[in-house]
Amino acid sequence: MKVKGFKAAAVEAGVRYQNRLDLALIYSEIPTTAAAVFTTNKVKAAPVKLSEKRIKSGSAQAVIVNSGNANACTGTAGMELAEQVSSLLAAELAINEDDVQIASTGVIGEPLPLQPFADNIPRLVSSLSEDGFDDVARAIMTTDTFAKTSYKKITIAGKEVSLLGIAKGSGMIMPNMATMLCFLLTDANLSPSVLQTIVSKGAEKTFNRITVDGDTSTNDMVLIMANGAADNPCIDESCDSESALFASGVEEVFLELAKMIVKDGEGATKFVTIEVAEAFNEADALAAARTIANSLLVKTAIYGEDPNWGRIIAALGRSGCKFKEETVSIMFDEVEMVKNGLGQGPEKEKQAALVMKKSDFTITIKLGQGRASEKLFTCDLSDGYVKINADYRS
Amino acid sequence: MKVKGFKAAAVEAGVRYQNRLDLALIYSEIPTTAAAVFTTNKVKAAPVKLSEKRIKSGSAQAVIVNSGNANACTGTAGMELAEQVSSLLAAELAINEDDVQIASTGVIGEPLPLQPFADNIPRLVSSLSEDGFDDVARAIMTTDTFAKTSYKKITIAGKEVSLLGIAKGSGMIMPNMATMLCFLLTDANLSPSVLQTIVSKGAEKTFNRITVDGDTSTNDMVLIMANGAADNPCIDESCDSESALFASGVEEVFLELAKMIVKDGEGATKFVTIEVAEAFNEADALAAARTIANSLLVKTAIYGEDPNWGRIIAALGRSGCKFKEETVSIMFDEVEMVKNGLGQGPEKEKQAALVMKKSDFTITIKLGQGRASEKLFTCDLSDGYVKINADYRS
Repeated sequence: MKVKGFKAAAVEAGVRYQNRLDLALIYSEIPTTAAAVFTTNKVKAAPVKLSEKRIKSGSAQAVIVNSGNANACTGTAGMELAEQVSSLLAAELAINEDDVQIASTGVIGEPLPLQPFADNIPRLVSSLSEDGFDDVARAIMTTDTFAKTSYKKITIAGKEVSLLGIAKGSGMIMPNMATMLCFLLTDANLSPSVLQTIVSKGAEKTFNRITVDGDTSTNDMVLIMANGAADNPCIDESCDSESALFASGVEEVFLELAKMIVKDGEGATKFVTIEVAEAFNEADALAAARTIANSLLVKTAIYGEDPNWGRIIAALGRSGCKFKEETVSIMFDEVEMVKNGLGQGPEKEKQAALVMKKSDFTITIKLGQGRASEKLFTCDLSDGYVKINADYRS
Repeated sequence: MKVKGFKAAAVEAGVRYQNRLDLALIYSEIPTTAAAVFTTNKVKAAPVKLSEKRIKSGSAQAVIVNSGNANACTGTAGMELAEQVSSLLAAELAINEDDVQIASTGVIGEPLPLQPFADNIPRLVSSLSEDGFDDVARAIMTTDTFAKTSYKKITIAGKEVSLLGIAKGSGMIMPNMATMLCFLLTDANLSPSVLQTIVSKGAEKTFNRITVDGDTSTNDMVLIMANGAADNPCIDESCDSESALFASGVEEVFLELAKMIVKDGEGATKFVTIEVAEAFNEADALAAARTIANSLLVKTAIYGEDPNWGRIIAALGRSGCKFKEETVSIMFDEVEMVKNGLGQGPEKEKQAALVMKKSDFTITIKLGQGRASEKLFTCDLSDGYVKINADYRS
């Protein structure tokens, strides 16, 4: 899992807890073309504000990330801290300070001290290695139960290109653009504007199609860094087919990571695809899928393995989506449990209940209104979620 | 708890379970002026459709309600059943069929048989008594843990007027108009149009300001029946002060019942008022209050008695409401834990945590944007909610 010209490292800095990796660094030997999307939450963490401002140059060379503290709602002190950290890092790496991207994840509203960074940045830099990415994936975990990486090689214009994605979940997840942290590193050679289009569209179709709990974080960020070390001819606006090829590689990596985030949703025991088909238009399909995927009653029924389709159709009814009850059908994988708005009896229900015993299945809602469709990825709501989130800021 | 001219009864009809009251009747000796509001969910239960059509006349004389089965998503058979039931009842009572209001609550999507109604309507009618209202309140319970009634006497134009309200909760509760069932009986004398205005406005300010789980039912209905037996001069458009007096009585009864529904929210252990103040306008205040009140992360933090205000401000940030982080303050009862967007330290946090140990408290979010404010009533999200709703359609 290497990408030419990229190195990484993580250390135990004791930001909030002892004895765990919590400070990570990704570094490119040369400045990269970079593009990102950030949370649409009006409350943005200090590192998000700083990174968002800097990425406008289309360039980045390093990313520093801590877990344990989000550095959000921390006022001017939080912003100064973010600037100090990036300044210390830039000096240690001898790179341009504006080429440092910074991210934080963890508790909101608590002051983040400089000490753990000042004490550990030299060691972090000296540990940089081309095999350090697994450590980074572990260091950025919060309530995640497994580290999330995705690695892919594609060939563009005869050159082998690597894509390495690292992400974290797993609560406060309802992307109304990119939710969570994701870093995608590639040695491909691309123009900044093409890269920005690719990250925006890619995130929209993947991270923006998952939900764990309907809450949108203040710290979300999806960043792509492309250092060009693969030596392919630069992909710019004139290279439609190469751009599409690269974009589909990015989308695959994003989708794999997005699904991992849902699978690792807090307390989740099921991975469920909600597909709304035959909708009047895509906005309708998405609104319906989102309302169903976020309904507590639907999510608890999934946890209980109960094909309680009345809750699905009730959620549909408050989604604002155009439909007639009489033309709705609902399928659990291949089992058509509802047809023309009516339940198809105990035998179908038994079959649907069997489908729900699986850890991964699809609920398809056909509206009979048109041809548009959308898919959303979600998980169930278990008492595990309540336990994790009712714990006093553990 | 009597209202002149009204009688009520409930019986064990075995609609879904044995040995519990599940079929209820409210009856006025003379036709009443009646007005109602119904669910805004696009999927409406058969009894809702039938009652909605009939109430346009502004008149009603009886209400029949069953629990255990919602008669929703039951197609033409469900509508025929509702008509048959009301026809049997009208014959037994010797009243006009169009003056029968009908309501159902329980599981969605299962056929509702005629048998329990046909077998029990005669007994139901013969048991009518002016003391039967407590039985009605018990008969319409589903996952409710206590029966919900509210009784008030007011004096209008020298005449004593009674208001008796009966309601049920307690899941699928997020009123975007009236959610749940509520019947308010009064011997006041009012014109139909004044009554409709009063029920609509009253429900908007009370039942439409509560949320348990963000889900809107297919069967919601708030009905007022006024039989005029108190003999006050009829309140019509010309009687502003009498109308306001009566409306405020209705609002008091509605609010008391609405709060009972939240207190009895599935799995709820806390009753919390979310007040958003100093908002730019009321729509903003309501959107913010609603997003905060429905956030799973906020609701689980309340359950955990953790004043985790970062989750409140993150919910605010995705609500679409106009504000600046720098002017937000957040109070737990009288404890100002956040000022100018910043946490006020561990001492305030300790005090806020103490407030949260209470079973009833207020979280106030001041936006510093204007003078509008809104209040919403909500509860916490406990593992009890998950257990109740993950049970296979119990």
